[in-house]
Amino acid sequence: MKQNIGPILQKKLQICTTKLIIMPKISNKGQQMPESPIRKLVPYSEMAKKNGHKVYHLNIGQPDIKTPEVAIKAVKNSDIEILEYSHSAGFDSYRTKLASSYQKIGLPINKEDIIITTGGSEALLFAIGSTMDAGDEIIIPEPFYANYNGFATASGVKVIPVISTLEQGFSLPPIADFEKLITSKTKAILICNPGNPTGYLYSESEINQLAELVKKHDLFLIADEVYREFVYDDNAKHYSVMNIPGIEENAIMIDSVSKRYSMCGARIGCIVSKNKELMSTALKFAQARLSPPTYEQIASEAALETPQSYFDEVITEYKERRDTLITELNKIPGVKVATPKGAFYCIAQLPVNDADDFAQWLLENFNFNGETVMVAPAAGFYSSPNVGKNEVRIAYVLKKEDLIKSVQILGEALKVYNN
Amino acid sequence: MKQNIGPILQKKLQICTTKLIIMPKISNKGQQMPESPIRKLVPYSEMAKKNGHKVYHLNIGQPDIKTPEVAIKAVKNSDIEILEYSHSAGFDSYRTKLASSYQKIGLPINKEDIIITTGGSEALLFAIGSTMDAGDEIIIPEPFYANYNGFATASGVKVIPVISTLEQGFSLPPIADFEKLITSKTKAILICNPGNPTGYLYSESEINQLAELVKKHDLFLIADEVYREFVYDDNAKHYSVMNIPGIEENAIMIDSVSKRYSMCGARIGCIVSKNKELMSTALKFAQARLSPPTYEQIASEAALETPQSYFDEVITEYKERRDTLITELNKIPGVKVATPKGAFYCIAQLPVNDADDFAQWLLENFNFNGETVMVAPAAGFYSSPNVGKNEVRIAYVLKKEDLIKSVQILGEALKVYNN
Repeated sequence: MKQNIGPILQKKLQICTTKLIIMPKISNKGQQMPESPIRKLVPYSEMAKKNGHKVYHLNIGQPDIKTPEVAIKAVKNSDIEILEYSHSAGFDSYRTKLASSYQKIGLPINKEDIIITTGGSEALLFAIGSTMDAGDEIIIPEPFYANYNGFATASGVKVIPVISTLEQGFSLPPIADFEKLITSKTKAILICNPGNPTGYLYSESEINQLAELVKKHDLFLIADEVYREFVYDDNAKHYSVMNIPGIEENAIMIDSVSKRYSMCGARIGCIVSKNKELMSTALKFAQARLSPPTYEQIASEAALETPQSYFDEVITEYKERRDTLITELNKIPGVKVATPKGAFYCIAQLPVNDADDFAQWLLENFNFNGETVMVAPAAGFYSSPNVGKNEVRIAYVLKKEDLIKSVQILGEALKVYNN
Repeated sequence: MKQNIGPILQKKLQICTTKLIIMPKISNKGQQMPESPIRKLVPYSEMAKKNGHKVYHLNIGQPDIKTPEVAIKAVKNSDIEILEYSHSAGFDSYRTKLASSYQKIGLPINKEDIIITTGGSEALLFAIGSTMDAGDEIIIPEPFYANYNGFATASGVKVIPVISTLEQGFSLPPIADFEKLITSKTKAILICNPGNPTGYLYSESEINQLAELVKKHDLFLIADEVYREFVYDDNAKHYSVMNIPGIEENAIMIDSVSKRYSMCGARIGCIVSKNKELMSTALKFAQARLSPPTYEQIASEAALETPQSYFDEVITEYKERRDTLITELNKIPGVKVATPKGAFYCIAQLPVNDADDFAQWLLENFNFNGETVMVAPAAGFYSSPNVGKNEVRIAYVLKKEDLIKSVQILGEALKVYNN
């Protein structure tokens, strides 16, 4: 090849090659880290706004509810002279009160079963790090919260998805489907209950089936329960893994203040388990990063004083939003949706081939009277390829009037998109 | 074996075995996670206090300096109604102002070179995750900050230590020592500059030698610069890796507000690099955990307005503390110490065989007029086994009078311990 290249081109090739050599390489792990499927549409949303369009955000689970005043005030009234490290497991006072608050809702959790973390995100990283080695496997019903992929990849762990379907209302897949996937590398099952992105609320029977399964196969059962209070319908009840007798050594609960108190920016959560070895292991991960954030622990501890009326109002409001959303969605021809019993999401199947393309088009090429909507294409919530390509996750985190408008826009958009 | 065991014992054995089977296993990673060497002495310290003894804490790098008022006020005056997620890379305004503040001290850092993290701890985890796969190797001069072991273990990465000695003032080991250790698995060199636990300040020549080394072997150079301002002596100057021409693609800087502003409890730091691929990879890790803490970003952004007088006073104070400590330590027969030029630590060699045992004895069995001291045994800062067994790290984070008292207690203790 060199014979035919003139001296200038040879020099350029040399420089190119040298430039290639100079750059140290990113890790394979870093290359495999997934990009946030939700955030990749953000540039299009920003462009739409620059063009003067109003964008209704149904794409991200950021509640519009006010954070409880008692939490905000506690931070404003704090009296700190030296902003010091706190205990690696979080304030003793916060853990004590948090344990009480769990006991009040019937969960037999003590202070020593809790480590305060920097969000449910960090709780998951501690849970995965304490229970799984690189190459181990974690079974997760899909569609699931997209960032589980990120935590698994960061930890060198493989996600083994087991599919749930809209036709079945995203209920727990048959236990036989789980068993088929268990290998010598399987260490845990992870569920989100109530679910993101499905809004599914697992029944007592389903939780018990999972309990039997993990006991039989000596697995951990990690339950992300951050949406615990967001349960609608009078006959609906939340079953925590911390309340199932016989799996005390298997159960790990992940919790967070983000959704419960509309405190997403606090980055406070916890990992909870009665398995003492698990907790002393997680504590080592906590010690390495020293402590969780201080002001937000103050806020979260105070938030435990939030009056029940706050939650009653929030849940009533979300129930009405859910009802409104589902009613409006069901009016659009070709749209299928499973009515969620919990959290504040639903998966809607749209009459399109590619929801990623449709979601981008909504922002880039569409407006209805100067307004459009942003949804989260559901493919990003599946691990299996080529699944959910015509589905979107909708977060009903807007006022009812805005939800009605949003779905109207969606309906108009589908007409235009499909012509 | 079964033939000789009666029915009751057989049943007990069966129950024992069943109980052994029931517990799902902790990961190897979790088992290998190091316990905090500093925190393992805490129960003895608490017992000493329960017994009415005053404990002078020379064991942990928690400054006693007041956090700048401007930072505290910004939090108290904040006006948040909904505590929302912020940008995964941190507030745009904070990154912008932080970049300016770096430029003011001669570091050519722009906003897009920065991701705000939950402490320097998280910045290190992102740096390691982005550059190293499980089984890869990172070379670190020892003794080093103990939690580097934890971050490496959590990430599945192997620490390869290269020893620096008290006799050489803990200066950079010869580059030949580094080269001997480089394998196909080596991906990075990590230094702390100024150093914890040594207080060593790397010279321009040493930093340039490292720059040549990483260029030659295509490695990343990760520099933990959290103690950057803590530099004493008029002829001493800090050389940042972000200021060395030719290693823009290799250099990764770790920074934090913890020591600079006495804001350890804020959990705010940053990862900084001009390597765009590195930063877009680190951003994926940041997106997975959503965002850094909100109130502390407010505090940290405001802290950038801290007047220079604050730093002048702090550095003057620490210089006096350093001088006091070294003078007093040098009075004790058998104690050797290298005078640190930066940070607020020093390593002292004591006339004992086992500093772990001595440090525990100080708390458990000794008091001088009802007072004792807590030091950090230095063995925990070495990766190599059986090194530093007669060394302790002393953090001069107390008032001068208390440092004088502390060293007096240490001197008396050594007399008693060695008789």
